[in-house]
Amino acid sequence: MDGAQQRTHTRSDAVRSRVALTDAVERLLREGRVDFSIPELASEAGLGVATAYRHFPAPSDALHAYYARAAGELVEALRDIDVDLDPVRRFETHCREWIAQAQTWGPAVRHIRSHEGFIERLDNGDPSIVALYSALDAVLQALVDAGHMPAGDRRVAVLLWITIFDERVVYDLEHHHGWTAEQIVEHLGQAARGALRIT
Amino acid sequence: MDGAQQRTHTRSDAVRSRVALTDAVERLLREGRVDFSIPELASEAGLGVATAYRHFPAPSDALHAYYARAAGELVEALRDIDVDLDPVRRFETHCREWIAQAQTWGPAVRHIRSHEGFIERLDNGDPSIVALYSALDAVLQALVDAGHMPAGDRRVAVLLWITIFDERVVYDLEHHHGWTAEQIVEHLGQAARGALRIT
Repeated sequence: MDGAQQRTHTRSDAVRSRVALTDAVERLLREGRVDFSIPELASEAGLGVATAYRHFPAPSDALHAYYARAAGELVEALRDIDVDLDPVRRFETHCREWIAQAQTWGPAVRHIRSHEGFIERLDNGDPSIVALYSALDAVLQALVDAGHMPAGDRRVAVLLWITIFDERVVYDLEHHHGWTAEQIVEHLGQAARGALRIT
Repeated sequence: MDGAQQRTHTRSDAVRSRVALTDAVERLLREGRVDFSIPELASEAGLGVATAYRHFPAPSDALHAYYARAAGELVEALRDIDVDLDPVRRFETHCREWIAQAQTWGPAVRHIRSHEGFIERLDNGDPSIVALYSALDAVLQALVDAGHMPAGDRRVAVLLWITIFDERVVYDLEHHHGWTAEQIVEHLGQAARGALRIT
């Protein structure tokens, strides 16, 4: 193996280890094991402790990486939605995709909600929050442009939408209130429409 | 001092210590010190470590006691609202009082949100949640009775109201968006009215 191949191999090993560790964070969180140590994370991932420490010096680093991945998956899914849809239909499609996403990572993410608010993290330039804001703001802008929503404080409108679509709310409705995804989409979508005065 | 006096004295000392420790939890949380130890809590309260352990064997016990006190203060404040108010006015008065309360304990409580949802804790009989549900449900029942709100899934309606009035949202709007209490009351109240279809 020459030098270039060696580097490629090493890099893809690193990517694989990082994915395995981030997957392990998700499994630990789903079990409510929020206070895991790096050796415990390594064990869950089936990797050596030194490898785990190389990727994540502290558990908080692993939690941030997992949160960023989940938020990134949400933003990617929302970006795939057709921008040429009728604005109200586009809003509804975002609501539907959001619930589908929240059902995948919500059972883990609900354990690690930040104490910092959405606006605080937006102002601090948190990349996950900036990307999510940008995706949702575009949907609301189209509603305003089409006369389906009053122009107003857009940051607060996005904050309200995110607040109503909280993954803990979705989890609660699915696992403790017995609602189907379709019922959750319909009810939370209607609540967000009412809160944002979308007609 | 006879036996009865001794017991009374001891009991009031215990009450004072518990209040001092619970006050200390609030100060630690406001500073973001969520992971305090019992000796740290004792030091913050100006009490002996043995006394602190007697009240709170683990930090989670102290956090629960603080959360229950804050939730109890909210319910007490809501109970003081005149039940004979016009139903919509009564709803608005609850919104106003809730924001005033959230401004007092929100900066601490936002650090310790449960990963369990509202419905899950209601079903588990969590006394703080049951009392809050009961207070809010009565306000919504009056709105339904007066024809100002559609009858529907009441647990979900209370969940939505609580979700929109989240202390982290209130903190974010006050400290990072520069809104006054009056602006927060008006905007979140209007959002909750829209979400719950209150007319």
